[in-house]
Amino acid sequence: MASISKRAADIPASAIRKMIPLADKARSQGVKVYRLNIGAPDIKSPQCALDAVKNHVMDHVSYTNSAGLLELREGFANRYYKSCGVDITPDDLLVTVAGSEAIDMAMKILMNPGDELILMEPYYTNYNTFAIENEIVIRPVPTDIRNGFKVPSMDEFEKLVTPRTKAIMISHPGNPTGTLYTKEEILSLGEIARKHDLFLISDEVYREFCYTDEPHFSAMSIPGLEQNVVMVDSISKRYNLCGARIGTIVTKNHEVLAAATKYAQARLSPPAYGQIAALGALDTPKEYFQAVKEEYIRRRDYTIGALNAMEGVFTPTPQGAFYTIVSLPVDDAEDFARWMLTDFRYEGQTVQITPAKTFYSTPGKGLNQVRIAYVLEIPELHKAMKVLEEGLKAYPGRTL
Amino acid sequence: MASISKRAADIPASAIRKMIPLADKARSQGVKVYRLNIGAPDIKSPQCALDAVKNHVMDHVSYTNSAGLLELREGFANRYYKSCGVDITPDDLLVTVAGSEAIDMAMKILMNPGDELILMEPYYTNYNTFAIENEIVIRPVPTDIRNGFKVPSMDEFEKLVTPRTKAIMISHPGNPTGTLYTKEEILSLGEIARKHDLFLISDEVYREFCYTDEPHFSAMSIPGLEQNVVMVDSISKRYNLCGARIGTIVTKNHEVLAAATKYAQARLSPPAYGQIAALGALDTPKEYFQAVKEEYIRRRDYTIGALNAMEGVFTPTPQGAFYTIVSLPVDDAEDFARWMLTDFRYEGQTVQITPAKTFYSTPGKGLNQVRIAYVLEIPELHKAMKVLEEGLKAYPGRTL
Repeated sequence: MASISKRAADIPASAIRKMIPLADKARSQGVKVYRLNIGAPDIKSPQCALDAVKNHVMDHVSYTNSAGLLELREGFANRYYKSCGVDITPDDLLVTVAGSEAIDMAMKILMNPGDELILMEPYYTNYNTFAIENEIVIRPVPTDIRNGFKVPSMDEFEKLVTPRTKAIMISHPGNPTGTLYTKEEILSLGEIARKHDLFLISDEVYREFCYTDEPHFSAMSIPGLEQNVVMVDSISKRYNLCGARIGTIVTKNHEVLAAATKYAQARLSPPAYGQIAALGALDTPKEYFQAVKEEYIRRRDYTIGALNAMEGVFTPTPQGAFYTIVSLPVDDAEDFARWMLTDFRYEGQTVQITPAKTFYSTPGKGLNQVRIAYVLEIPELHKAMKVLEEGLKAYPGRTL
Repeated sequence: MASISKRAADIPASAIRKMIPLADKARSQGVKVYRLNIGAPDIKSPQCALDAVKNHVMDHVSYTNSAGLLELREGFANRYYKSCGVDITPDDLLVTVAGSEAIDMAMKILMNPGDELILMEPYYTNYNTFAIENEIVIRPVPTDIRNGFKVPSMDEFEKLVTPRTKAIMISHPGNPTGTLYTKEEILSLGEIARKHDLFLISDEVYREFCYTDEPHFSAMSIPGLEQNVVMVDSISKRYNLCGARIGTIVTKNHEVLAAATKYAQARLSPPAYGQIAALGALDTPKEYFQAVKEEYIRRRDYTIGALNAMEGVFTPTPQGAFYTIVSLPVDDAEDFARWMLTDFRYEGQTVQITPAKTFYSTPGKGLNQVRIAYVLEIPELHKAMKVLEEGLKAYPGRTL
């Protein structure tokens, strides 16, 4: 019988999503399952975004320009990006089907099959999926949970540079670690890119979730590196509009954008309704971001404190996004995460967490780590932390 | 300087879209330009689809399941597809980001780089774009405008079958020819697929636009070929919801769907608003399709009559979709199409048409042909046909 392609067989199944049936089963048994496994926040979308769609008068939902509505590109450039210090024009960006398409486009456009991409490990799982889809070789630079996944020295990067190295990619601030890069760190990454003439792909979808007093310093702002920097971005997280599927690919390198336009034309149009929501979202008041940020700081402080108070548990204090990588006193965090869903109940509750192995490509790394997304309200997080603590005490593979 | 990838450089720019700046320029000079160049109809979306979005209560636009909302998959399978005689369950389909993603997924999943895909020429341009993106080799079977682009004999297909042949793809009814395949023709394509164990990819996005008395016979209904047929579909055309970006990939072959699920997980979620519109569209009354179909039959009859009445012009009578390929008495239809936009005005008007060369991969074919989309109201079509006729008389490269 005709069989599927090797490339389709080779794409890894989502490690995060393969736990879902186990969680569903627990729920069907009446167990309360706290979802700390994915970055799907519980916070409302801005009312102006929701209203924009409700109030939009349209009798025909037609294609938009493949690059997105001009009005939206203008709004992103002249209003949103300007307000966060990223100096671009509407011609420097293209509207994508969320951050996912922007990442995929950046990889396809900047790298040939066999080219090497340097990533700080641990990194967002789907970077791996898109790299495999695009036949890109990932070269991970190790970082260390004990120093909060700090950017390694230039030497560590340079050890990995080969004639096939084409780009460095960062998540800033980062999923899954919550690492926020300082201006100095971004500039030093820029130096490496400049020295070896590499592209620097900067995924800045968590820009509005920075918990230090420093303003977020975009890779787009590195002086003199304009032709090498490609920013991928999305409205999903910053406006809690994950389902709108609207993102951007942003660069001053117009050869890159011209190629992105060709890919965009093949898929015809980004979602029209999502673009209308995005247009509305441009009116989001500063207070919305401020309130959301304060809420996440409270959640983070609570969660980090609770985790580090558990025996044998360690997690650094992330400065951005809404994730943290946690080292647990267990033999195998994947087995533990599964066991929590299948076997462990505390007062009829359990927690769903993501084994961190999926964020590493170096075999054997992250085996006793999990990623926790602190995307629930504090009273819920409080109960979830208690359940996790009790689970760790009861787990047969405990290493303490 | 770091340069873009070879694959990105190799993607062809859309021939259709490269005319757009010329049309924009004519418009900016006050010229009325009739848009016969793309399949963007002027017909209203069903009110139930528009209302579904307006009335949907939601305070957070979140991700849906990567495979689409279960309710929508059930609605497609149990209501829409059942109503058109396609017998599937919700487990036989996945919601995609419109037909474009479904086509791309089908190609990626069914074919390895270097594998060969048989297409009847002329064919939809983006089949070519996605084939190039996925390193698939297109092997065109010639068809003939003089007999209405009829399916060639099995012999013609078999001449092209090699050990690398992996699939046949059809557009049914077809863009750009408007060809509607009879049940017998679909069954005979099925025979070829069965005999050589090929996949049959059937793009049925124009299913609701069939102008014969026979019901549309889906490739999904070929007896015994269930594991080889993959249908790609979209709500864009049938509900005039091109901007919603919702489609489906449908197959009884669950190995194919499992692979599609992995690709779907990498891009996280189809558009949420589009899915809500699609759910609403399931309530579209039969009368909507009937009225749209009758309108298109009127437009087609008018357009085909007017074209064939022009000296030296020939077009067959398409039985489906809303396109027709037209042979013109010109030396070079691309030059003619460009000249119409840049030079020719008749009472301050001109027409925008698509050179058919872009729908052929065999060099030298279709050079004197254009594709016309009859997507305007008859009074507008009437004026457009007059302008086209006058343009043909005045064109310096006229061959009569």
